Amino acid sequence: ADSVQLYGIIDMGVGHFTGIAPSNTTAAPGSTASYTGLMSGVVAGSRIGLKGTEDLGGGLKAIFKAETGFCPAGTNQTGAGTSGYCTGGSFMGRTTMLGLQGSFGTVQMGRYFTSMFTNEINYDPFQAGFTGAYSNFSLGIFGLNGDAIGSLLRSNQTITYISPSLAGLTVRADYSFNTGAATDPINTAGNKTTMWSLDGNYAIGAATVGANYTKVSNITVNASGANTGAYKVWQAFGSYDLGVAKLMGIYERGTADYYSGNDSSWLVGTTVPLGAGMIMASYGQYSSSLSNTVALSKSTAKQYAIGYSYNLSKRTMLYTSYAHINNDSAAVDRLGTALAVNTATNSNAGVTGQGSSGFAVGILHSF
Amino acid sequence: ADSVQLYGIIDMGVGHFTGIAPSNTTAAPGSTASYTGLMSGVVAGSRIGLKGTEDLGGGLKAIFKAETGFCPAGTNQTGAGTSGYCTGGSFMGRTTMLGLQGSFGTVQMGRYFTSMFTNEINYDPFQAGFTGAYSNFSLGIFGLNGDAIGSLLRSNQTITYISPSLAGLTVRADYSFNTGAATDPINTAGNKTTMWSLDGNYAIGAATVGANYTKVSNITVNASGANTGAYKVWQAFGSYDLGVAKLMGIYERGTADYYSGNDSSWLVGTTVPLGAGMIMASYGQYSSSLSNTVALSKSTAKQYAIGYSYNLSKRTMLYTSYAHINNDSAAVDRLGTALAVNTATNSNAGVTGQGSSGFAVGILHSF
Amino acid sequence: ADSVQLYGIIDMGVGHFTGIAPSNTTAAPGSTASYTGLMSGVVAGSRIGLKGTEDLGGGLKAIFKAETGFCPAGTNQTGAGTSGYCTGGSFMGRTTMLGLQGSFGTVQMGRYFTSMFTNEINYDPFQAGFTGAYSNFSLGIFGLNGDAIGSLLRSNQTITYISPSLAGLTVRADYSFNTGAATDPINTAGNKTTMWSLDGNYAIGAATVGANYTKVSNITVNASGANTGAYKVWQAFGSYDLGVAKLMGIYERGTADYYSGNDSSWLVGTTVPLGAGMIMASYGQYSSSLSNTVALSKSTAKQYAIGYSYNLSKRTMLYTSYAHINNDSAAVDRLGTALAVNTATNSNAGVTGQGSSGFAVGILHSF
Repeated sequence: ADSVQLYGIIDMGVGHFTGIAPSNTTAAPGSTASYTGLMSGVVAGSRIGLKGTEDLGGGLKAIFKAETGFCPAGTNQTGAGTSGYCTGGSFMGRTTMLGLQGSFGTVQMGRYFTSMFTNEINYDPFQAGFTGAYSNFSLGIFGLNGDAIGSLLRSNQTITYISPSLAGLTVRADYSFNTGAATDPINTAGNKTTMWSLDGNYAIGAATVGANYTKVSNITVNASGANTGAYKVWQAFGSYDLGVAKLMGIYERGTADYYSGNDSSWLVGTTVPLGAGMIMASYGQYSSSLSNTVALSKSTAKQYAIGYSYNLSKRTMLYTSYAHINNDSAAVDRLGTALAVNTATNSNAGVTGQGSSGFAVGILHSF
Repeated sequence: ADSVQLYGIIDMGVGHFTGIAPSNTTAAPGSTASYTGLMSGVVAGSRIGLKGTEDLGGGLKAIFKAETGFCPAGTNQTGAGTSGYCTGGSFMGRTTMLGLQGSFGTVQMGRYFTSMFTNEINYDPFQAGFTGAYSNFSLGIFGLNGDAIGSLLRSNQTITYISPSLAGLTVRADYSFNTGAATDPINTAGNKTTMWSLDGNYAIGAATVGANYTKVSNITVNASGANTGAYKVWQAFGSYDLGVAKLMGIYERGTADYYSGNDSSWLVGTTVPLGAGMIMASYGQYSSSLSNTVALSKSTAKQYAIGYSYNLSKRTMLYTSYAHINNDSAAVDRLGTALAVNTATNSNAGVTGQGSSGFAVGILHSF
Repeated sequence: ADSVQLYGIIDMGVGHFTGIAPSNTTAAPGSTASYTGLMSGVVAGSRIGLKGTEDLGGGLKAIFKAETGFCPAGTNQTGAGTSGYCTGGSFMGRTTMLGLQGSFGTVQMGRYFTSMFTNEINYDPFQAGFTGAYSNFSLGIFGLNGDAIGSLLRSNQTITYISPSLAGLTVRADYSFNTGAATDPINTAGNKTTMWSLDGNYAIGAATVGANYTKVSNITVNASGANTGAYKVWQAFGSYDLGVAKLMGIYERGTADYYSGNDSSWLVGTTVPLGAGMIMASYGQYSSSLSNTVALSKSTAKQYAIGYSYNLSKRTMLYTSYAHINNDSAAVDRLGTALAVNTATNSNAGVTGQGSSGFAVGILHSF
């Protein structure tokens, strides 16, 4: 049957952050600051969306989704960075998808989460939210962040095929004509920052395992105005549901054909259902041996996080979480960023050789 | 019962303004201009919103509201100033609120009208709209406007408690972690522009009386990058419904701990129901003895306004209004601004020692 | 009966463009580039809107519409130009209209398509969409584009009267207080860029004929800060429905009182229904003899286009189209722009003396 549905999430919480980089430029090197604020989208980005399905006959369906983000606590959140933080970049910029679905699977196009980031959500006990999200230091967010590819969170101009489940195996393939947030220059070679990825997920009983390969091409712009260079990421992940607890883990490794070395990140975590509530915990690391000019080299960061959520109803949830991240003493550790509220674009810059911590308590309401 | 509701207002009218400051910089000092245009949101800002309530059991309810503004006549309205004028700052930036409601009252958080501005609406016959709104010269809008606190119209990152009615008495308390429109710098002291306010409203028969105290802290930024300094406003207000007419009045007085002197504003007004229509009239003044560097000092402005609205139906209203404001000859009277279309952020700058007037006729439709 | 309706369109397709101007400034003069991408709004701009009607009694109705655009494939489309491209300028900036309707006709106000552009849609087989839209070179889009009036696509602050059909004749009259996208300066003369137009459409059997006159006043800003100067466009158009095919044509001619000469454009086209599908084809030209300083002079461009659409259902359509545009060798032909995806604000700049072509295949879903 045909349907169009209006839905949304409003999520706000009080957060307290310590150990972040102060914004006054006269602060002494290595000094840190702390602050408290009302935050938007701590657990999940606040959003309003429309989704629908139309029966085209013969088992074929048209499906769509268009979703915009917003900042219920206002747009002056510290660390929010760009004005697009809460909207995902523009109106309906969180997700837009139009596709056809049938026995062959799903073919869809638009702007949405990459398969790589989708795994970073699904194999993170905090689902890329709370104060201790994996996305605080994952490659999907920080992978070569300084190199103009932006994050691999969402990709623009993307066409995707998702297979039906074949005895537990689901395959997803993506191609993006222009993944970057910025409009690519059209030089005489016509190069744009493209991306393709292949993703496999296998469910067997209480276990799931999977792997992902993502390649972003034509990243750097050379003197003649031509884009060139590629960044490649391997991902492996799995989970096991014991009933009393669910265990999960994810590992990522990235290389660039214009640097030597690589960067990697990993996380292990668990969720423990407890009546109407749930306990979440995770530990993970990021490390880099990349040789480059934007000072990503030889840095390491370690994060642990614990949280608890309690469902007042199916639609309303109370939550709290605490997390701590340690940055090593390597020069200009880009992972000084830490303890983002939900997304790293909202990250509070950390300080080299210092730890930072974040605590939040809040409420999420969906409709 | 649970509910989610889509609602909105579209309001447009033709306005004619005289005595405003011309924007060509070569205009002779003291010269004024006039113009006519189709205006958005003359009586009430055009908006689209969602509001909902969910029954959580035991007398507890979750409530939310998310409302965005827009410019039905286009974004090129003269005097519109910032691009955010019609949207209230950003998507869903007019109002966003999430709260819990029970026999204890309401606890809510988000971005919404301050209690101080709520009183400026409720005790203004024009409800902060038409051409002669109290907000043309009220402290809630202009209070130390030159001092980087922005207006006290809405506050970000706010948590509010509203009591149930106790024998006619309702108390509201607000705290904002960061009221300013701009992202506050996080210095080593961690200061942000915070606000708190306490508001009491007492209804007895046909009368209401009330008072409000609002304090904004950490306004000014000193050399070391630390925010400091506070602005405080007292408000008193009341109304009496005679049946054939309702009388109302409001008085406000502000002081800053980094200036000597004070500024104040007051308004008296009446609404007279007349079949399906209503007559509105008001008179008010602003005056300042503040000593400061942004030239607010020793200025006075006086405004009178008259209007009429007629309901074609419960949802559709025709309206017209006329107002005049006089600016004294004090140097650079900030209240040269006058006769805003609904909000002062849309104000048309006035001219020192000159009067300006505004006339509008239009239609408001709600759904 | 009263009603409020939520509706929308999501349209995305893969487009391939050749012969466009490369963006790297070191490219050799006359060199061209090609690229492929996923495009938003190829056939019709993706949008979400609300429209409603309220019965006021006595045959009178209140009507409204508020519609916002968005970019389902992301905002990094090459050639997208301004950030407002997909939204039509701002939230709800595609169309906003509030009006009263009765036996006298319709009086409405807001921001919406000019009557001139409405004809450019209705008498174009591609309805201003696909790769070969008339709006690629029509006066409604390019008429004196370099002269700060912006396009005549939509007008702000507009009041419109539309007559009922009188024996087949419908008359529409528009007045805009401020048509420009930018806020006009208010000088001491109070001039703004106004527009008025008169439009007549006569339907007789299978035929329609019509004419339109549009005048934009106070375009240029002189030294004293006063707007002055006018641009005038005549339009004639007609169609005939043979049943097996519909034929249509449109002619436009513009003059400016501050230039000598004129510019003109015309198009002839046909639509051929074919079961659940439709074939579209058109041919047209633009030419200019304007004398001015922005190099519009003595240029000619010719475009042909062919397309096919197929309805999977009433709400879902597949489509494809091909178009080619030739720019003559006149110096700096502004109609180097060519083969826009739906709107010229998204146009890909062409190259003097070169041809460019565009091909697209996609899907449009409405709800």
